[in-house]
Amino acid sequence: MKLGRIVGTVVSTRKDEKIEGLKLYVVRDLSLDLQAKDSFVVAADTVGAGLGEVVLYATGSSARQTRLTDRRPTDAAVMAIVDQIDIDGRLVYDKLAESMGSGAEEG
Amino acid sequence: MKLGRIVGTVVSTRKDEKIEGLKLYVVRDLSLDLQAKDSFVVAADTVGAGLGEVVLYATGSSARQTRLTDRRPTDAAVMAIVDQIDIDGRLVYDKLAESMGSGAEEG
Amino acid sequence: MKLGRIVGTVVSTRKDEKIEGLKLYVVRDLSLDLQAKDSFVVAADTVGAGLGEVVLYATGSSARQTRLTDRRPTDAAVMAIVDQIDIDGRLVYDKLAESMGSGAEEG
Amino acid sequence: MKLGRIVGTVVSTRKDEKIEGLKLYVVRDLSLDLQAKDSFVVAADTVGAGLGEVVLYATGSSARQTRLTDRRPTDAAVMAIVDQIDIDGRLVYDKLAESMGSGAEEG
Amino acid sequence: MKLGRIVGTVVSTRKDEKIEGLKLYVVRDLSLDLQAKDSFVVAADTVGAGLGEVVLYATGSSARQTRLTDRRPTDAAVMAIVDQIDIDGRLVYDKLAESMGSGAEEG
Repeated sequence: MKLGRIVGTVVSTRKDEKIEGLKLYVVRDLSLDLQAKDSFVVAADTVGAGLGEVVLYATGSSARQTRLTDRRPTDAAVMAIVDQIDIDGRLVYDKLAESMGSGAEEG
Repeated sequence: MKLGRIVGTVVSTRKDEKIEGLKLYVVRDLSLDLQAKDSFVVAADTVGAGLGEVVLYATGSSARQTRLTDRRPTDAAVMAIVDQIDIDGRLVYDKLAESMGSGAEEG
Repeated sequence: MKLGRIVGTVVSTRKDEKIEGLKLYVVRDLSLDLQAKDSFVVAADTVGAGLGEVVLYATGSSARQTRLTDRRPTDAAVMAIVDQIDIDGRLVYDKLAESMGSGAEEG
Repeated sequence: MKLGRIVGTVVSTRKDEKIEGLKLYVVRDLSLDLQAKDSFVVAADTVGAGLGEVVLYATGSSARQTRLTDRRPTDAAVMAIVDQIDIDGRLVYDKLAESMGSGAEEG
Repeated sequence: MKLGRIVGTVVSTRKDEKIEGLKLYVVRDLSLDLQAKDSFVVAADTVGAGLGEVVLYATGSSARQTRLTDRRPTDAAVMAIVDQIDIDGRLVYDKLAESMGSGAEEG
């Protein structure tokens, strides 16, 4: 899986009938120190993730193994919302701390 | 999926019998700010997209999950025409505005 | 699919029994203006393509969907010979013109 | 497969139900001389590997062929712990020597 | 398939049970003029290839289509030993000439 942050949404009314109802997110890849990279994918949401969240997404045929994406023509799926990342014994990402730090939801 | 813009067509008379009848588009990859990149793919159209349109395409085995591409030797398929893209709460692409802006179809 | 030009052949006598009989071509990737890139693949021919021809090749599991490559351990297959490529309304490649231009076959 | 070193862990409470129970490791890619590269994946552990270990991981549909990852939406799996690597007749990595060198486990 | 040269071996005692018995080679990618590149994979041998040999390897699900790798969690397999490569009508690689040139086996 790859590590990414949801930064946007894609709206499409004319699409393959099999992807009707899937929420399509723009997900930017993240570096090991959680910086946004230039690369990105458009991934189907399968876990109720929201804008700004750090997530894991799977690509290729693995992206079709969730209940929501089974046999659908989607090659990228957000399949986990990240709570914490630990690198070399150091907590480099904590979803709760980020939320508090922003003050947006708690303040 | 990846974000691209249809910039051309490929004509082939001698090809695997299983891809007969598929329209083959040249699709250039787009950056997050909708600029065309050097990279591109040739993708089968499954949604009736047209030249100049911003689309999503799926690659790999996922490209064979549409009704049109089932069991065909195609590894890239246009499976959605993009109407709007929202990044960081800002509308960065609007198909309707682009059409009007160009003046070509409305003017 | 990707756009490439057949530039060479690979001969192998000791190989997996399931790829016996497949012609293996060296295919260089092409840019949008038909220039040869450094990257290349070795692809199984499924359409009777020849040296020097501009072709489309599929990779991954899609490369096994042709009659010739079914269930064979090949991850790249030439599945179409390109006749014409049109980019932004301009004919950038014409197989017939290239043949005549070279003078080799007609002259 | 690719060669990597496990450098961290990812914790997620909200994820696709099919990946419940899988340990998710951050695995940095290694060069031929065992230097860590910038690229990394998040891979499911299937062999009981630990932090700091040099491992092999498989990607794509192959990552779902282990008993632990069967039919799960995971596209990367640690499927071997590396004991020794030999390049051009020279031992470039020896797990036992590395352990002793660090003095952490034996000292 | 990709063109590579076998440059080393990987030994692993603790691995997924389904890859027991497979010989794992370090294979460096080769350029069109047969120079070794920095990129490499660890691939399962399916044809009895040896150190120093120029080979073709398949990746992804195609790597599981050989008799030896069927349903195993391996995403790269050496499936052909290369005898000759011809580029633009010129013999750029000849296994026999290389063997004689080195003098190691014949001298």
